Amino acid sequence: MGKCKIVVIGGSAAGAKAAAKARRLDQTAEITIIQKDPDLSMASCGYPYYVGGTFENRNSLLATPTGVVRDPSFFQKTKDINALVETECLLIDREAKKIECRSLKNGEMHTVGYDKLILCTGASPRRLPVPGTDLLGVTALLSMADTDFLHRVSTSGEVKNAVIIGGGLIGVEACEALVNRGVKVTLIEMVDQVLPMLDLQLAKLVENHMEAKGVVVFSGTRLAEFTGENGRIKEVRLAGGESLPCDLAVMATGVQPTVKLAADCGLNIGQLGGIEVDKFMQTSDESIYAAGDCVECVDLISGKKVLAPMGDLANLQGRVAGENAVLGNSVTFPGTTRTAICKVFDFSAGVTGLTEKQAREIGMTDIETVVNASPDKPGFMGAGLLISKLLIEKSSQKILGYQCTGNGDVSRQLATAAMAVTGGLTISDIATADLPYAPPFSLAIDHFIASSHLMQNKLKGRMKSISAEELHQLVYSGNTPFLIDGRGPDEYEVLRLGIGEKYIPLGMLRSKLSELPADKDAEIVCFCKISLRGYETALILEANGWTNVKVLEGGIMAWPYKREK
Amino acid sequence: MGKCKIVVIGGSAAGAKAAAKARRLDQTAEITIIQKDPDLSMASCGYPYYVGGTFENRNSLLATPTGVVRDPSFFQKTKDINALVETECLLIDREAKKIECRSLKNGEMHTVGYDKLILCTGASPRRLPVPGTDLLGVTALLSMADTDFLHRVSTSGEVKNAVIIGGGLIGVEACEALVNRGVKVTLIEMVDQVLPMLDLQLAKLVENHMEAKGVVVFSGTRLAEFTGENGRIKEVRLAGGESLPCDLAVMATGVQPTVKLAADCGLNIGQLGGIEVDKFMQTSDESIYAAGDCVECVDLISGKKVLAPMGDLANLQGRVAGENAVLGNSVTFPGTTRTAICKVFDFSAGVTGLTEKQAREIGMTDIETVVNASPDKPGFMGAGLLISKLLIEKSSQKILGYQCTGNGDVSRQLATAAMAVTGGLTISDIATADLPYAPPFSLAIDHFIASSHLMQNKLKGRMKSISAEELHQLVYSGNTPFLIDGRGPDEYEVLRLGIGEKYIPLGMLRSKLSELPADKDAEIVCFCKISLRGYETALILEANGWTNVKVLEGGIMAWPYKREK
Repeated sequence: MGKCKIVVIGGSAAGAKAAAKARRLDQTAEITIIQKDPDLSMASCGYPYYVGGTFENRNSLLATPTGVVRDPSFFQKTKDINALVETECLLIDREAKKIECRSLKNGEMHTVGYDKLILCTGASPRRLPVPGTDLLGVTALLSMADTDFLHRVSTSGEVKNAVIIGGGLIGVEACEALVNRGVKVTLIEMVDQVLPMLDLQLAKLVENHMEAKGVVVFSGTRLAEFTGENGRIKEVRLAGGESLPCDLAVMATGVQPTVKLAADCGLNIGQLGGIEVDKFMQTSDESIYAAGDCVECVDLISGKKVLAPMGDLANLQGRVAGENAVLGNSVTFPGTTRTAICKVFDFSAGVTGLTEKQAREIGMTDIETVVNASPDKPGFMGAGLLISKLLIEKSSQKILGYQCTGNGDVSRQLATAAMAVTGGLTISDIATADLPYAPPFSLAIDHFIASSHLMQNKLKGRMKSISAEELHQLVYSGNTPFLIDGRGPDEYEVLRLGIGEKYIPLGMLRSKLSELPADKDAEIVCFCKISLRGYETALILEANGWTNVKVLEGGIMAWPYKREK
Repeated sequence: MGKCKIVVIGGSAAGAKAAAKARRLDQTAEITIIQKDPDLSMASCGYPYYVGGTFENRNSLLATPTGVVRDPSFFQKTKDINALVETECLLIDREAKKIECRSLKNGEMHTVGYDKLILCTGASPRRLPVPGTDLLGVTALLSMADTDFLHRVSTSGEVKNAVIIGGGLIGVEACEALVNRGVKVTLIEMVDQVLPMLDLQLAKLVENHMEAKGVVVFSGTRLAEFTGENGRIKEVRLAGGESLPCDLAVMATGVQPTVKLAADCGLNIGQLGGIEVDKFMQTSDESIYAAGDCVECVDLISGKKVLAPMGDLANLQGRVAGENAVLGNSVTFPGTTRTAICKVFDFSAGVTGLTEKQAREIGMTDIETVVNASPDKPGFMGAGLLISKLLIEKSSQKILGYQCTGNGDVSRQLATAAMAVTGGLTISDIATADLPYAPPFSLAIDHFIASSHLMQNKLKGRMKSISAEELHQLVYSGNTPFLIDGRGPDEYEVLRLGIGEKYIPLGMLRSKLSELPADKDAEIVCFCKISLRGYETALILEANGWTNVKVLEGGIMAWPYKREK
């Protein structure tokens, strides 16, 4: 038997990783990467940070940590991998195990044979079915070419007003990038919130922060068309008729798996449009593996197939595909917990596991949630704020999902929760967990642990609570309950909901019970800045005979609606 | 039955938490805290940061997040808890369920009865059996009084030179605090490393960083005495005869549980000197609970009893004790994974689970370790460095422990690992884990995941490795193997070990095989900055017939010994 021929189509995250892993496991194999773009191993998740000026050296996106650009010569010399760039694959002949390619430089055709093939064809922007997408100044932020374009126009000063279409991860990151370059940005999002990976309440808190940074956000808004002048974008027209003048429009409306090659050669394509693979990352052809944005993978919580076009998963999948292509099926990629995080100006926001919305959509009813707000560390250490939502399976008390946002250390929170979800841990496991504590890093009782305590209090019936959404609905419909803000006068002066609440500092409550409703069954909602004093207020009222007392989850800090102050 | 009388002795972390939790669960109980110190609910882990000037408002250590000092009036008004400060407990009469107390203000004696008693008597400095501990200028950093003293002398300019005795958490934090105040600091530590919670290699990296910040560290050094002039400290004399002139000496030599009251009334005291409690935090008397630094708790990995005087555990235990005192034994504190973290200038350092040293000490042999070094996020985002050591049980591949240091996001690493240890996760679980990734927060393959990959490579025999300690021993004993540094010339110019290595950039290796030992069985050790290229170098050599090729774990970044450059 001669040298094994391994061909990888696609040379970004998954492809480069698969090829490198294959090389480490087989020093004699002939390994070829075929890449349509001129660049390889692009750090595509870094594109918004180059556009926004976090760094100005384009090569940083293409280089090793020591600054060597990962071009075909690098792949040849350090990895003994033949990287054919600017080469398009036209056809996979599975019978003959051959790929027909065409050079984009000179149009020459050639054929590459394989023993094992790894498809890492990635994803492409979801096309918007509106007129004007071909105008100059209408772009995505997915390729290096998009990135170069955005970097150029945002640094040259030629762009004053930009409209971003889509409030997902890339849309939100593009927002920050352009604002950092002094561009006035409007974001439009079809659904009623930015970051659809989050439940509404947390997403609204992120949206509020974006607006505080000068971004105009139109959620629940549909795009009608891009209109231009002399072939150049001039405005974005909304379905409602409104028009937004702009000199740049960024389409960040998601991606779809690039599967034409796979489909054309008869590989199974899943219902969501991605290449079907098993846990070995093997397609319906045992000589062909696939990894990265082009595949469907398993949501480990719901067991359902999902599209999860994430750079980290692409790397992990590529590693598995590369190993199995060389050694036969020996390692597995079980699936995703749909963990995601992004930076949004001074906030971070992310999720691991299911959101409540996702859980409800797939018919789960045995669930409970709680919203928690607290500092991430002691105030004297310069605390940031964390607002989170914990989702559990009620019967087993297992953690199903966790979302977090705020200007505190969201990354640690989500990493902690991702491990808890992966490990199938329950809130009892978390309630006494031994997490790293010192004042520079966390509170003595970490926010995630405190969330589990809140959940325990809720499940044990000690804390009857109401969500911001529920309370807002009551107020909005004219059924405002009796509201108590348990904070002190100084605090009330600078920050308040202003939805009809009475303010009774916790320390004076026991002497002011006469000011409360005479009807002991009246609905009362207690809160404070983060609803710790709100909780203590509620306990005192209950001990004094009031029967229908609730705590506003997360207090003022988790309130996503307009406040008086 | 009348109101339940709950008495808590000690009003710092565990005591204040236990009392507050008891109140939340029973609005009618008579709850009393008896506290010897004048202050309550002190954020004692924050003392070094007040001394060092992270903040200057002393009240921050005693106040709620909204700035209200937690004094007896606060406890009375907001919690309906009677806090007797400056009151010493002399005797517990378990038969009569009474405590004899004396006021430190006026010497008056009085008796307090209880139905349930919670002992949160904390810990006291371990006494040094050397002369001179009573000199002015010799202090600990454990009480508010110590803190006030250190704050005063370090801000007044009267201290120029300080000696810190003990390189544990508090010693190291005290170092940073005093250096931040412009004091010249020398640290002496009896054992051969700072931070004995870490294995030697990582501790040495921390020590190197401290020395880079101007601290003189004497490890493996015993104290002989403090000598003074006019009752004031003048120098610290070492057992070897050397003398260190100073005007301040901080004893940070650890703490011992304060158990006199418990022992005097006949409660069981454990072999380590702490109060014996079960998982309900109940002592050998069913009416008496105990929590915090005064108790022994279970190490969840080894199953052995340990002392774990940590602020976070004190809070978690206090919460359990408070609840069980009110409701009967209903919730548990299963134990600790001995998680700890500290800030050391620009580094952080910490551990969760067992160290290799601890595992060996208790006779574990079915273990494997790997050291990993990598950036915490992409270089273009301003990466910090992480160096970690992963410890697993070899047969089950379960993670037993993880240590991490560096100027990167150590906190997230340790929180992730703490959850993995708590959940009994294996390296396979981690190898494909879905952690929160975006460039501002981590690498596409998170450092912790990469550590599990390294461990897999090691277990599968793909990576034969050598630790820095082993290689250093070989070099030291004159048995230096053939050493290859696989980095480029620019890198070699600015940073190098200089222990006889030949530098062969990875990209040139395949054409330079003739420069390698003719003896294919010669011992060869490969490395680079973090040993990724070192690993690829080793794979190429093995494929070319060399049989005894090893990789230096963690590369140059994890090398704790002197470098040429």
